[in-house]
Amino acid sequence: MTADTTANLPQNLQAIRDRAPLIHNITNLVVTNVTANALLALGASPAMVENTDEVAELARVANALVINLGTISSSRAAAMRIGARAAVQAGKPWVMDPVAVGALGYRSRLAAELLAERPTVIRGNASEITALAAMQGGGVTAGGKGVDSTLSSAAALEEAKGLASRTGAIVVVSGAMDYVTDGKRVTGIANGHPIMTRVTGMGCTATALIAPFLAVTPDAFAAAVQATIVMGVAGDTAMEMAGGPGSFQVAFLDVLYALEGEEILAKARLT
Amino acid sequence: MTADTTANLPQNLQAIRDRAPLIHNITNLVVTNVTANALLALGASPAMVENTDEVAELARVANALVINLGTISSSRAAAMRIGARAAVQAGKPWVMDPVAVGALGYRSRLAAELLAERPTVIRGNASEITALAAMQGGGVTAGGKGVDSTLSSAAALEEAKGLASRTGAIVVVSGAMDYVTDGKRVTGIANGHPIMTRVTGMGCTATALIAPFLAVTPDAFAAAVQATIVMGVAGDTAMEMAGGPGSFQVAFLDVLYALEGEEILAKARLT
Amino acid sequence: MTADTTANLPQNLQAIRDRAPLIHNITNLVVTNVTANALLALGASPAMVENTDEVAELARVANALVINLGTISSSRAAAMRIGARAAVQAGKPWVMDPVAVGALGYRSRLAAELLAERPTVIRGNASEITALAAMQGGGVTAGGKGVDSTLSSAAALEEAKGLASRTGAIVVVSGAMDYVTDGKRVTGIANGHPIMTRVTGMGCTATALIAPFLAVTPDAFAAAVQATIVMGVAGDTAMEMAGGPGSFQVAFLDVLYALEGEEILAKARLT
Repeated sequence: MTADTTANLPQNLQAIRDRAPLIHNITNLVVTNVTANALLALGASPAMVENTDEVAELARVANALVINLGTISSSRAAAMRIGARAAVQAGKPWVMDPVAVGALGYRSRLAAELLAERPTVIRGNASEITALAAMQGGGVTAGGKGVDSTLSSAAALEEAKGLASRTGAIVVVSGAMDYVTDGKRVTGIANGHPIMTRVTGMGCTATALIAPFLAVTPDAFAAAVQATIVMGVAGDTAMEMAGGPGSFQVAFLDVLYALEGEEILAKARLT
Repeated sequence: MTADTTANLPQNLQAIRDRAPLIHNITNLVVTNVTANALLALGASPAMVENTDEVAELARVANALVINLGTISSSRAAAMRIGARAAVQAGKPWVMDPVAVGALGYRSRLAAELLAERPTVIRGNASEITALAAMQGGGVTAGGKGVDSTLSSAAALEEAKGLASRTGAIVVVSGAMDYVTDGKRVTGIANGHPIMTRVTGMGCTATALIAPFLAVTPDAFAAAVQATIVMGVAGDTAMEMAGGPGSFQVAFLDVLYALEGEEILAKARLT
Repeated sequence: MTADTTANLPQNLQAIRDRAPLIHNITNLVVTNVTANALLALGASPAMVENTDEVAELARVANALVINLGTISSSRAAAMRIGARAAVQAGKPWVMDPVAVGALGYRSRLAAELLAERPTVIRGNASEITALAAMQGGGVTAGGKGVDSTLSSAAALEEAKGLASRTGAIVVVSGAMDYVTDGKRVTGIANGHPIMTRVTGMGCTATALIAPFLAVTPDAFAAAVQATIVMGVAGDTAMEMAGGPGSFQVAFLDVLYALEGEEILAKARLT
């Protein structure tokens, strides 16, 4: 199973670098720069557009859409609703990052609305995924402190599987071990370094990197697994040359730009 | 006096790293990423939320609030009013950074409004503190050029003491020498490097780092002194390994993440 | 001709470092931090203010204004209209960056409106300049993919000259070769490195750096040429010490801070 979903990672990475898919991001104020740079380093062409007068036009021509709830406002929420709807109508994949859902009521309600637009992939930490699953009828209680999870990813795995089954989305739960599931299959990815929790926007980057993979393959499960592997291996490799969270960020972009597909597969730690 | 306010710096820093206090930031567009990373490197858990539909809910559960006037808009100003009120009502400390107050009329009026919510600590450069003191009845004329001060911190010290006495806030004036005062006591901190004025958001970072100290100690004067020392010593230490304003920023985060309390005290230059 | 427009680059750079001109930026969410840091590293004093209640007041006292359409919203568009008008009325130079104009209808209409306020300099990539020229009556079809150009700068040179002639603005077309034209004269600058297209906001930085040169010289053509040379030489020099797009950004700020005028002229590759 794992081999099937990872074997063409080098080809997909090369396709991203060759085609530079246009990735539309409606994301948060903290990570706009970080996300754009990570997408550029990978080889994609990011566009950060959240204007309600422009999002539908861009979502139709972009190759994939990323919606991140980090710093929502009423106008940004409106842009998300318009953008998700336009992407779906144009047959474009979209990824949702439910930042801090469960911890704050307004964004939890918005996330429930956006779920109705059927995201292709949902990525969050254990608290966020658990909260989203509970809202969807899974019936467990959420736990979270702002944007940081208070649960382990393993504790959220059953909730993630239920969320995937009910919504049709691929669900990624980030943590010391990352899990990707479509409700039946589960791939665990053990790459990545704890320092990534001391750098803002690493989760948002993990979400954003899924979009270019969705743009080059119709297999959303494989896209989510491969992007999560790239994220984790880039983190491991960057940490080998970093001395703290500042130099880590610098090395992460350098590594993302240079890593080759075969090297990534060789470093992947899957279960 | 100085010994009293700095002796437990190592314990407070350790408490921040152990408890990861949730710091709510309503801040400016230029520094959201920088501020979040500095708080994470120190050991705190930042949340950047400025949505008027969410700020009260978050301010009540967060351990401290930071309000920074750098890029205000009418909706951001509304969020600041709601957030400050909610923090005060919930008994949470809050820090105000009056960016460019005195230079522009709209934000000067907003700053006066926010002062009525009694910030726990106010941190600014000499021009900003002088302008704020003048608005509060101190009667001097403000001087400032956009966000950069045209006065030395020493020139603003008497104004800072007056502002502290009238508002009950601890006041920090940043400059080549930083001063912290409660209106009677004054601690001067000579750490820090001039290159910090060539990196955007260093003042905003100095403000933000006060919040986690307020979250772990009820002594607001000590919290402001200790955070200001950490900021200055981290700057000094980072400059030892930096070659300019780009590498300084990288080193600053690495140093903030790694510095130990005893080392910080040993490097502090107090008066 | 070239000698005339570059000979006083060292003096102008020194004037920026001595006077620290106040540069008002109404720019996009992705690059606020990057732009502020580049302006600080060069020696200018940036202020990022986009509040409709403050832009006119600041535009009148600032030494130059930068308007960047990257992440426009209705309120940011309103701020741009107010700011451009106030700058012109106060006799201050202003620079326009028509990010992604041509690719999205709303911003193309806004760009046409802003052109009526007669920007001193316009800087964009080939797709953006071609689109702007077409809107202005040049009659060619635009090509662009989000924020990235699908045309070479040489292909846009005739359009750039026409745009300059019709608007009275100096026009800069960025690409592997950068062109600066006033409609008659053309200076080509071959500095810069392809990795700059893999770092977000490098075009926005190229735009912003023109403003402090406009603040210290009345010769707008020379200001645009000199700023474009500084940008390209700083890029070349940074790439000598960088290993990818992350370390490039760090080195770029260090270099911009340290480069001396004579060294810049020695490294300039002009045609």
